[in-house]
Amino acid sequence: MKFLQYNENGQIKLAVKRQDSIIPLHSVDENLPQDMKGLILKGSEVLDELRQKISSYSGTTLPLHNVEFALPVGNPERFLCLGLNYVDHAKEGNNTVPEHPAIFMRTPTSLAAHNQPLLLPKVNKKLDYEAELLVVIGKEAKYLNRDNALDAVWGYSLFNDGSVRPYQRWSTQWTMGKNFDQTGGFGPWIVTPDELPLGAKGLEIEMRLNGQVMQLANTNDMVFDVVTTLVQISECMTLQPGDCIAMGTPSGVGYPRNPPVFLQPGDIAEVDVEGIGVLKNGIVLEE
Amino acid sequence: MKFLQYNENGQIKLAVKRQDSIIPLHSVDENLPQDMKGLILKGSEVLDELRQKISSYSGTTLPLHNVEFALPVGNPERFLCLGLNYVDHAKEGNNTVPEHPAIFMRTPTSLAAHNQPLLLPKVNKKLDYEAELLVVIGKEAKYLNRDNALDAVWGYSLFNDGSVRPYQRWSTQWTMGKNFDQTGGFGPWIVTPDELPLGAKGLEIEMRLNGQVMQLANTNDMVFDVVTTLVQISECMTLQPGDCIAMGTPSGVGYPRNPPVFLQPGDIAEVDVEGIGVLKNGIVLEE
Repeated sequence: MKFLQYNENGQIKLAVKRQDSIIPLHSVDENLPQDMKGLILKGSEVLDELRQKISSYSGTTLPLHNVEFALPVGNPERFLCLGLNYVDHAKEGNNTVPEHPAIFMRTPTSLAAHNQPLLLPKVNKKLDYEAELLVVIGKEAKYLNRDNALDAVWGYSLFNDGSVRPYQRWSTQWTMGKNFDQTGGFGPWIVTPDELPLGAKGLEIEMRLNGQVMQLANTNDMVFDVVTTLVQISECMTLQPGDCIAMGTPSGVGYPRNPPVFLQPGDIAEVDVEGIGVLKNGIVLEE
Repeated sequence: MKFLQYNENGQIKLAVKRQDSIIPLHSVDENLPQDMKGLILKGSEVLDELRQKISSYSGTTLPLHNVEFALPVGNPERFLCLGLNYVDHAKEGNNTVPEHPAIFMRTPTSLAAHNQPLLLPKVNKKLDYEAELLVVIGKEAKYLNRDNALDAVWGYSLFNDGSVRPYQRWSTQWTMGKNFDQTGGFGPWIVTPDELPLGAKGLEIEMRLNGQVMQLANTNDMVFDVVTTLVQISECMTLQPGDCIAMGTPSGVGYPRNPPVFLQPGDIAEVDVEGIGVLKNGIVLEE
């Protein structure tokens, strides 16, 4: 199933995608929580029954193209990101491949929903794109091991880890360049793991800028796969339902190109991962 | 005024400190929000009236030594920390002094309230202490300048930026070593700016380990003072009420000492900043 949050008259609602339409969750089961975090907290056990109800559902639907998408998880307490998690991407920036996941965090204010614009900051125009697979955590998890790590995954989504490069290099820590307001695309929905290969392995991942392919790789190329990443992170911190982990980007980002490519007002950036969907964001200059 | 949150029968409540006792805020003004974040959202304007009410208050108080302290801000959306913000501390670790604030983030699960234990992780015993001044933001703030930056400050508190050093050096990014569960002491209260010098300048800052002074410096020694830090951060992200910024630690931390010093079960760590108070945390081995 593909779950999404959307805006209707200023209210965030939860829905399931079915082909070119969405089914508001309250129409299927009004007893379930009507927001993503609430649904995740119910555990994956409620999803089997929900899947059956949806397969036989014949009530109201809304056309997908009319939906005003909201962030799939509105206010994740932990939004962790891996850097340099594809060998070719580490090399293109003359970085060494890390021995452990290089992790930084993003705050919710730095995120943008599907179809929302990414803001090109007034103070610096070197905003770069990064196509990424994103993992959404389903349960409280500490000391995961290789056998049970994937049990902690509630679903997968897409991320464009928009990065203001000069601020990312301000100091040794990347935090500032990764946290400009509304620069990280997240969405459009969360796909449950049953629809994807185990650990989201073997999926083609692509970034298109105005239709042109800029990044093209496979999730098999990750240095630290989902299992390894979850094992290592949960050694340090207790993961919580709704936490998000962006799995890093492959080679082909804009800054090391000759000449460098940065996002311009009017550009359209699309992250496309096989079996998940397409995350689309236009670029708008911050007012 | 000094505001604190405390636990009473499993409920978080808000109080004002007066000498050796606390005044529950609901006894003074039941119309004000009864949690710190709510009070901060009311703006600094309500504080003048509150100050008057408290000065003439003669109702119930609770003895300070009986209070079960909670985090001053329970779930800050942004908990930003500066690294290498004192010249001598940068030097003791053979780091260069950064040209811009080196910023990382901590998640709420990594925090511990005053008097709560800091947890020594099972997987690694090299937990180090770091005494810090902490700034609490009072209003939404973007593009602050040197003249208005301090208007965004709601108050000041204390922080012990507990750091699992080997995990901090796992990769170039310090995030993992800074986010072990319950390793960062935060409290005991938030002091409003009227009780301190402008920008909390010129305050003695001290870390005591089992009563022995391990760090001793002055907030004047910061590379980036509060004003500069706020101006630079708000260039990137919109700060929000309740956001916390830990201002970095002076020299004297444990790991570069000969022999190195790390926190041991049974140790008592105290952060003491002139005019603010003392933040005290014992050390307990994670179960």
